[in-house]
This record gives sequence, C-alpha cells and structure tokens, in this order.
Amino acid sequence: MNAPTAISHLVPESHQREVPAALIDALKSRFGDRCSTAMAVREQHGRDESSFDAPPPAAVIFAESTEDVAAAVKLVSEHAVPVIPFGVGSSLEGHLLAVQGGISIDVSRMNKVLSVNAEDLTVTVQPGVTRKQLNEEIKNTGLFFPIDPGADASIGGMTATRASGTNAVRYGTMRENVLALEVVTASGEVIRTGTRAKKSSAGYDLTRLFIGSEGTLGVVTEVTLRIYPLPEAVSAAICSFPSIEAAVRTVIQTIQLGVPIARVELIDHHTVRMVNAYAKLGLREEAMLLMEFHGSPAGVKEQAETVQEIASEFGGKAFEWASTPEERTRLWTARHNAYFAAVQSRPGCRVISTDTCVPISRLADCLLDSVAEADASGIPYFLVGHVGDGNFHFGYLLDPNAPEERITAEKLNHALVSRALALGGTCTGEHGVGLHKMGFLVDEAGAGAVDMMRTIKRALDPKNIMNPGKIFSL
Amino acid sequence: MNAPTAISHLVPESHQREVPAALIDALKSRFGDRCSTAMAVREQHGRDESSFDAPPPAAVIFAESTEDVAAAVKLVSEHAVPVIPFGVGSSLEGHLLAVQGGISIDVSRMNKVLSVNAEDLTVTVQPGVTRKQLNEEIKNTGLFFPIDPGADASIGGMTATRASGTNAVRYGTMRENVLALEVVTASGEVIRTGTRAKKSSAGYDLTRLFIGSEGTLGVVTEVTLRIYPLPEAVSAAICSFPSIEAAVRTVIQTIQLGVPIARVELIDHHTVRMVNAYAKLGLREEAMLLMEFHGSPAGVKEQAETVQEIASEFGGKAFEWASTPEERTRLWTARHNAYFAAVQSRPGCRVISTDTCVPISRLADCLLDSVAEADASGIPYFLVGHVGDGNFHFGYLLDPNAPEERITAEKLNHALVSRALALGGTCTGEHGVGLHKMGFLVDEAGAGAVDMMRTIKRALDPKNIMNPGKIFSL
Repeated sequence: MNAPTAISHLVPESHQREVPAALIDALKSRFGDRCSTAMAVREQHGRDESSFDAPPPAAVIFAESTEDVAAAVKLVSEHAVPVIPFGVGSSLEGHLLAVQGGISIDVSRMNKVLSVNAEDLTVTVQPGVTRKQLNEEIKNTGLFFPIDPGADASIGGMTATRASGTNAVRYGTMRENVLALEVVTASGEVIRTGTRAKKSSAGYDLTRLFIGSEGTLGVVTEVTLRIYPLPEAVSAAICSFPSIEAAVRTVIQTIQLGVPIARVELIDHHTVRMVNAYAKLGLREEAMLLMEFHGSPAGVKEQAETVQEIASEFGGKAFEWASTPEERTRLWTARHNAYFAAVQSRPGCRVISTDTCVPISRLADCLLDSVAEADASGIPYFLVGHVGDGNFHFGYLLDPNAPEERITAEKLNHALVSRALALGGTCTGEHGVGLHKMGFLVDEAGAGAVDMMRTIKRALDPKNIMNPGKIFSL
Repeated sequence: MNAPTAISHLVPESHQREVPAALIDALKSRFGDRCSTAMAVREQHGRDESSFDAPPPAAVIFAESTEDVAAAVKLVSEHAVPVIPFGVGSSLEGHLLAVQGGISIDVSRMNKVLSVNAEDLTVTVQPGVTRKQLNEEIKNTGLFFPIDPGADASIGGMTATRASGTNAVRYGTMRENVLALEVVTASGEVIRTGTRAKKSSAGYDLTRLFIGSEGTLGVVTEVTLRIYPLPEAVSAAICSFPSIEAAVRTVIQTIQLGVPIARVELIDHHTVRMVNAYAKLGLREEAMLLMEFHGSPAGVKEQAETVQEIASEFGGKAFEWASTPEERTRLWTARHNAYFAAVQSRPGCRVISTDTCVPISRLADCLLDSVAEADASGIPYFLVGHVGDGNFHFGYLLDPNAPEERITAEKLNHALVSRALALGGTCTGEHGVGLHKMGFLVDEAGAGAVDMMRTIKRALDPKNIMNPGKIFSL
C-alpha cells in the first residue's frame, strides 16, 4: 500500500466536461418542468452525506418512468455528457457528486411498489422506493424486507452500493436479496436481468454485476427483492461489557457457534453517551451489544440463552430485554440515529466514516488496535458495528476549519484499511468505493482485477457517461 | 419463443479451429508427459454426461499449479486456440466438449485443500478438489460444505456452472457460498477476486461474474468457500403421498411458512421404482418427499412437527425416520444415485435432463402439466426435484437408435421451458446453459441482456479462446 495521502475534499472544476446548451434545450423540451436548472435544485443533487465538495450538475431530471430514464440517457449519450442517478442522497462516499459535471437523474418519483408476491416471498419495486416505505407498504402481508442501512435509503441506491445493515448477519446483503433488475444501459436500452426464480444458472450473473456498480454501468429502474415472513417471535436485548474486547469476543464466539442471531450491533461507550444525549435514553455508558433474536418462541429462547452464557464468560452483564415492539423500535431507532447523534455532539462537524470488514476471527485484532490509534489521535469519533459480519464504522468528527484534523483522520483510516486488508478483509463492507476509496480498491483487489473492472466499464459504457470518476479512474 | 427444433447431438467438425503443430510442440516442451495427445486421453476429455458428441480436443494438459494453467493459457492464447477447463467431467450440458477444437486443461491434479479457517467458517481449495473430498478432509473440524450436485463434482466445475443441489434450499448455491476466487484470465494473467470478508462493497462483483460463466471468461485456479458448523441435531424423514400434487403442495406451504428445512427432495413413483431396483431399497413406490431438518434438538423437532402437520393435510403418510447417520447416508446416496438408477433401468440409453426452476407458488402449475405431457409421450423418464427451491429435473431416457425419441424429448423440454419462463422462472436452475440451452437463454434473458453478456465476453476474451461456443454464439 502506498503512503497515506490526504484526499482533497474539493474536486477541481477542471475535471468538468462541457454540457452543451443544445442538450439542456433537448432535455427541457422532453421533460418540461421536470428538467430543472435552478441552482438550489442542482446544489441539492450535487452533494451527499460525504465530506466532498464538487460543482453541482448542470441540470436535474425528475424521472417518473423507465421511459423517462431511457429518454434522458439517450439524449445525454448523444452529447457524451455524464449522467448520475440520484435516489435520496444518503451516500456516504461521494457517489452522487458531479465530479465531471453532467446531468443528475432523480428517481425519487419512481416510488411505486409494483407487485407483491407474498406466496413467493418476492416484491418488485421502482428504485425510488425507500426501505421504510417498502416495509410500511407490505406490513399487512406479514412479510418484511430486512436490509437496513442507517439512512432511509432508496432501494435503487442500496442496489447500487450493495448495501446491508444490522440484519445482514442473518438475512444477507443486497447481493443475496436482489433477484432481478430492470436497467437502462449506457446506450439508453432497457434490459432485464434475472428472474423471480430463487436460483438460476442461466448465463453471466448480470444482476450481481449491477449490484454494487455504483451507477457506473447503467441506471436501475426496477428491482425484484426477496422478502421474509415476520418471525413468529422476536426478542431484543442489550448487554453491557467491561470493554470493547469483551463484547467483540462474545460476538466472535456466537458466530463461530453458528447461532442464527438476527442482529448484533456493537456500540462503544463514546457512542452510547452520544445516543443517550440525542435520544434521551438512559443506557449504561459502557461498550454494549444490541442484539435481536428471530425464530420460533423456543428457538429465540434457546439462542438468547446461548449468547447470554457466552457473554457472561466475558464479563457481560445480564441481558436487559426490550420486550414490546415499541421498546424495540425505540432502541433500533436510537441505533440507526447514532450517526446523527454523533454529528450533533460536535455541532458543525463533517464526518469521515470508515467501513472495513474482516473475517470474524480477526475482528478483535482489527478493531482494538484501531481504537487505540483513534484514542491516541485526540479526534472525537463514534464507533458502531455490524460486528456479526466483521464490519464496523468509525466516524471521525472533524472541525471543517481545522484541516489538520482531516489529515489525521485520513491517516487513521489508512492505517485501519491497511490492517483490515492484511487480515484478509475489505476496505468497504457496505458503503461502496465512491470517491473516497479508489486508492484502497487497488490495494485490496490488485491492479489486475481493477483493470478487469475498467475493461468491463469501457465495454459497457464506451463514452464513459455513467457516473464517471467513481470506483476507479479510467 | 421460436418453434421447437431438435438440437443435433453431433457438432460438425467444420466448426473446429486449427491447432498448429507449433503449439503442440510448445506445450509438450513446457509440460512434457503432462501434455497428452493420446486418443484415449483426448476422448475422455472430449465428452461429459451430456448427450452431445464432438471431436475430442487436440491435446490435454494436466495442470498441477496456477503457474501451469497460466503458462498453458499464454501459449494457447498466442495461437488463438480454444482452451477448455476440465474437472471431473460431470457436466450435463456439453460444457466440456471441444466444439471448436482446442486444448483441454485438466485441473484434477490441483486437488489440495489449501487452508481451513475453522474460526471464520471458510476454506480455500484448488479447483480439482471434489465436494466429497472436501467434506472428508474437513470432517474432523465439525464443519461441512453443503453444496451437493448429484455427481461428486469438482469445486472448480461447480463454480463454473453455479451449481447447487439438495441443501440449497437452506444453505444457498455456489453463488452464495463462494467468497473469493483466483482466476487465470484469457491473457494468462492471474487475478484475485473478493476477500475472506463475509461481505464487501468494493467495486464490481467479479467473483459473481466468474461464478456461472462456464469457463468462458477464465480458468478458476483457487476457490474460497463458506463452510458451516455441523448442525447439533439432524433428522431425516421420508413421507409418501397419494400424488405428486399432494407432495408439491406440502412443499409450497412449508416454504411459504418459512420453515428452515435443510433439504426437501421430490422423487416421483417411477423414480422410486428405479431407485429401489438399483439400491435394493424397499421404498413405497409412490410420490415421495425426502426431507432433512437441521438445528438444535428442539428446533429440529419443531420443524418436523410443522411439516408433518402440513403433509397430513394433503394426505401424506406418517413420516418414516432415518435416525442413524448410516440410514441417512443410505437414503441420500440413493437420492444422489437416482440418475444412475434411471440409466440402468433402460440399459444403453442416453439422457436429456431438464433443469427448470420457478417461483415456489408456480411449482405445481409447472410440474403437473409437464408430468401429464411426459406421460402422454410414452418416453420413459425419471423425475426428481429440489422442490424447496422450485427446481426439478426430468430425465428423458432415450434409445440412441431411435432418433424420433430425441425429437419427442426435445419437444417436451421445449414445452417445459416455455411454461417455466411464462411463470417467471428460468430454463436452468443449476446445470448451466452449455450447448443445450443457448436458444432458451435468449428467450429467458432477452436479446439485450445476452448482447451485454457477449460484450463482456468480447472485452475480457478478445480472441474468443476461453471455452468458446458455450452459453451464446459470438
């Protein structure tokens, strides 16, 4: 791995490609009011939750159908101008920034649940449907969609970043839960990948190629997802530990024993304090595991007893139970709001989030050394983790007026990623590469594999118009 | 879908590309005895379990390392000659046939289990390791690898065809269970895809692109797999039903209720008879489900009780239990040998296997109409199915001297695939496209998606040397 370099948070304007007036005219003629060049709209679509700044896109198209997306891509392609799909703007990695200029296609109005096949445990949605909306719309079927990144992200965005979240330890990630896609290709053609069958050996796995491709190969316009029966029994528990290590060792042993735990989240003592302040909770300010068990009543009891036993061996306190759905929702909302709680703890800060994921046996090694380094740096941070998957996030809370903090944070992140890669892990478990991890991707995958990605990109998007400048340089 | 056409079982020699003597000389010079041009060796590597015939490859390389594979591919690439990876030869779809001539690379000597990471539930193997060998080598760890196509296939071949088997309903297919690969590309370069982390959002999912690519994009030289703790309790049961429909309805309801059944196989009454004759078993000659439950003792009991209750509603008899490991092995061996039992029931026959997979709610519709058609045709057949996944196989047992039988079988298969596609399914759940389903792939995926596959193939293998003539025509 190369020496750490601070990544500039300002993408130079010189990278911008020209957007001809003729294209804007053509888009306005096709989309009318739904093509906006208002600065406020452009600025809103030119940023995300990352700490990068770039000039906004030249225009924003509000697509309402696959045909809209195809028409926009065709027009944009004629002029070889970049096009960036936009869902709700919750990317953490700069995916939505118009680093080479171009047009943003906002799919948030494509927000229909198109079909629910309760008998087959599948659902087909438009890309602008958010995860919470989906669960709201199917709740009367007794089924649910488990993937839950912190934000109320769009299904299209979650597909593009191969997202996961707290339930992935049991239910998998978008990789496992997307069955089929409709995609508008770089030439504006509409194709379908996959079927509603649970498995298939029919040719190249284009579905998985698009999942995690971050908008660089096409625009997702329809997603068929697996959904699950609501478990017969659910119980959630908190367990406090004398140290992060004790909590992590408990998780490692739980996973190694094959306990089918549904959620197991680490929250460190700093972060518990932030969450307490933000959500007015009275959680014990120690390293904590927040767990959930799904199954039959007997199965849930059995799982919980096994994990309580393991936790006790490592000095974990007695489980505190959240037995009502309301209490559970309150706890999980607090967990999902940890990011916002942290941001509020240092008003005006910008956040650099890490996203390493390692094999479970290496979790303690990776995490503890990184905690020691973060503590030594003096930078305030939060630490949460989907530790059952070996995935955790530091969020360094940076004073935007203190550039040396950014340099320190990038060094911490660099050391963390180097450690994760050396332990057989990945630089990104669920956020994607975007702008921030392009260098890390080469370290992780090797130049040959990244070259293969480039070759695929060039073949499928010869004009380099689909969200260019993300994942790798061309 | 086009009108059914009988696919010729003889691939014309005129498709063969020339293999220059200079290439054979270079291969002999590099590999010595491990480059064979003996006709017996070539013929053995020029066929598989499909009913196709093609001229054999010009030579067979016995690779013993990644370096061997890379060296062979580089030499072959210089002459733009096809190269076909060969594991154990158990493909059902003509994957291994040298339809355009070329060189076979036999990886069966690359049969080492390179590392077992019991703590992380991962293992890394060479591609020639077979599934049974792997389980034998890790059995003292208390872990197992669940994917079990009927044959004792190689892990490389299983990766190439995105294989699954009886355990997939609970443990997933090769798609879900391969974490990382080492691959020799079409230019002879060695790349790695994926890491040992359980999840990752780091760039394009090259791992999934290679899984199911049938040797057309590169040669897999190392595979990192997920393995699982042996369940605390296992119980297997047989249940006989008054009809196939009753058995299938039981399965549909079991899956829809979310029972985490580990295996649920349908065997029709014809096939039970064949299995009884072959394996000297005394199974009741009725449609049957062969099931297995994995979990804690309480969990297994609970699952079995639920399924017994459902089965009884549909007229299923009381479960007959296989309680000892020996009895279970005997039953599952009989299931895995159903193919051979069927072949023996009509000595000298050739088999055309179907492999459709449909959403679970459509299983009865798809299966029952196809049974009626097969019965009406008079062609002997066997019928088994991984019905929990919506996947089943007819095997039409054909007299090689009665060409009209092949035409009838192809018509049956065509009708079955048409039906499966109309129901939202796939032409191949686990066998791959190979030679046999190239037309079906276009019907299923659409011309645009198949063109995208071709574009990827051309970009990654510009000389079209990697197992050419499979999946799609170029």
